[in-house]
Amino acid sequence: MLDPERILRLEDDRAVFLDQRKLPVEEVDVECRTAAEVAEAIRTMVVRGAPAIGVAAAYGLALAAMNGEDLAAADAVLRASRPTAVNLAWALDEMAGDPSPEHARAIHVAEVERCRQMASHTADLLSPGTRALTHCNAGGLATGGYGSAVGALLTAFERGLLAHVWVDETRPLLQGARLTAWELETAAVPHAVIADSAAGSLMAAGEVDCVITGADRIAANGDAANKIGTYSLAVLAHHHDLAMYVVAPSTTLDLGTPDGGSIPIEHRDPTEVTSRFAARNPAFDVTPAGLITAIVTERGVHRAPYVDSLSGAVTA
Amino acid sequence: MLDPERILRLEDDRAVFLDQRKLPVEEVDVECRTAAEVAEAIRTMVVRGAPAIGVAAAYGLALAAMNGEDLAAADAVLRASRPTAVNLAWALDEMAGDPSPEHARAIHVAEVERCRQMASHTADLLSPGTRALTHCNAGGLATGGYGSAVGALLTAFERGLLAHVWVDETRPLLQGARLTAWELETAAVPHAVIADSAAGSLMAAGEVDCVITGADRIAANGDAANKIGTYSLAVLAHHHDLAMYVVAPSTTLDLGTPDGGSIPIEHRDPTEVTSRFAARNPAFDVTPAGLITAIVTERGVHRAPYVDSLSGAVTA
Repeated sequence: MLDPERILRLEDDRAVFLDQRKLPVEEVDVECRTAAEVAEAIRTMVVRGAPAIGVAAAYGLALAAMNGEDLAAADAVLRASRPTAVNLAWALDEMAGDPSPEHARAIHVAEVERCRQMASHTADLLSPGTRALTHCNAGGLATGGYGSAVGALLTAFERGLLAHVWVDETRPLLQGARLTAWELETAAVPHAVIADSAAGSLMAAGEVDCVITGADRIAANGDAANKIGTYSLAVLAHHHDLAMYVVAPSTTLDLGTPDGGSIPIEHRDPTEVTSRFAARNPAFDVTPAGLITAIVTERGVHRAPYVDSLSGAVTA
Repeated sequence: MLDPERILRLEDDRAVFLDQRKLPVEEVDVECRTAAEVAEAIRTMVVRGAPAIGVAAAYGLALAAMNGEDLAAADAVLRASRPTAVNLAWALDEMAGDPSPEHARAIHVAEVERCRQMASHTADLLSPGTRALTHCNAGGLATGGYGSAVGALLTAFERGLLAHVWVDETRPLLQGARLTAWELETAAVPHAVIADSAAGSLMAAGEVDCVITGADRIAANGDAANKIGTYSLAVLAHHHDLAMYVVAPSTTLDLGTPDGGSIPIEHRDPTEVTSRFAARNPAFDVTPAGLITAIVTERGVHRAPYVDSLSGAVTA
């Protein structure tokens, strides 16, 4: 797997993030010395992926404490950096009691360990020869190491269960074509990038066995917010009677939000959609629980009714 | 509407095509003086869109006749230029009996007239305030003037029925973001470009009333081949109980092909999908007749069972 400290790490006076906007063409770091600089790195997607955003925010608050910054102000600027991923708020809540560098690094280590556990639980669901389709990047880059959906694919591959991965390119920012394909290539997992719109016809042709994605926030009833397009995949999987697995750490659960209708959906700059014409650019959508076969956290495999199966799965 | 002769025209010694690969950034022409040059312009998508490909092929055969080229060889090279659009074979069959420039130009004029008729039939199906979603470019550019799906949108807008158009950007070649948005802007039709993967969530949010697309080939049972992604839209429309209209001239009907399984699907260069990794790049998919609310040709509105309703709609 990718070295977690290569993706993001806290040094004596700075947080260092691998710039995910430049991958795979360039591997360059961005250094942040204040909470505000970390917030800007999150906002501009130097760091992206719900768990990785949480870890970055923890590093940001630790930097603020090390610098003697106003912690309430640092918390506020970090908390406002992106709206959908609940891991951001979770990590900041965690850090409130102990904003030390050691605590922030422990949060990072724990997220990677959760990925390992989720991956094992998810691989247990798969049969030999599985051809999985994934969307966006729920990989090591998105989680600070190993990955949620991609971690599950890596573990399944190691167990000899995975035949092929279809990688949605994931417009407009191409996290699939740039990041997931890069991670799979690094791990020598057979894969092919496809235009997002090709997923349905591959399912119709019998070339897909299941869909595996991550999530940015999961409501108490199991509705899951994730990268725009995940909902369409869930409808397509349902139509083709394929499993739809959502793999996410318990830090992505938001049991205080009853359902997906209450999850804030980020709309990003329309110019991200390549066009000189008017555009609408929602960055996330919500997949209703009814279209999700199972939600996998590090605690295990949760099935409907999710209100019951998810309660108690939240990391205290 | 766009001037049909600006899109493609036959002059004394050449065919002149508006280069659709360069739009909307540049408006430049490509000139072809032989059937082989026309075939190359079709293959490389200088001219694209099933009806426009047919007209271009007619101009190519007319050029061959004017040049004294071997007509059988010219027919063969043109016929092989792209596999999916049946209009190509139809136009060449038409031209076989009379490969004159006048005949080729008459085919062009007739295609535009068919668009006008289809547009009226389709607009008759729409209610005031319609928010339609379209995919790829079934516009004036694709048809040699006015358009099939886009023509229907233009007529609906003129009749005061159309509130908004969602334009799938249509990866990988962005025909929606580049061409359809340009045509709609030219006609002052309210629209916004979206990532293809956003269509489902817009439907779930109640912001789409119907899907309107063109087609490249329609089999006898109503299965319709069109730009990759159309099938996914049809499944999504079905899931959300929205109408799925396919608008195409009778020259797109292929009653000799019993169903979609027999339609050849072009796979284009994987490098069109932005990635340095392995890719799969099907250019078309097939939407089963069962997911199509109505097929509209210039002869009228055809509904299931299509084997009955489409028979007799073919231009002799």
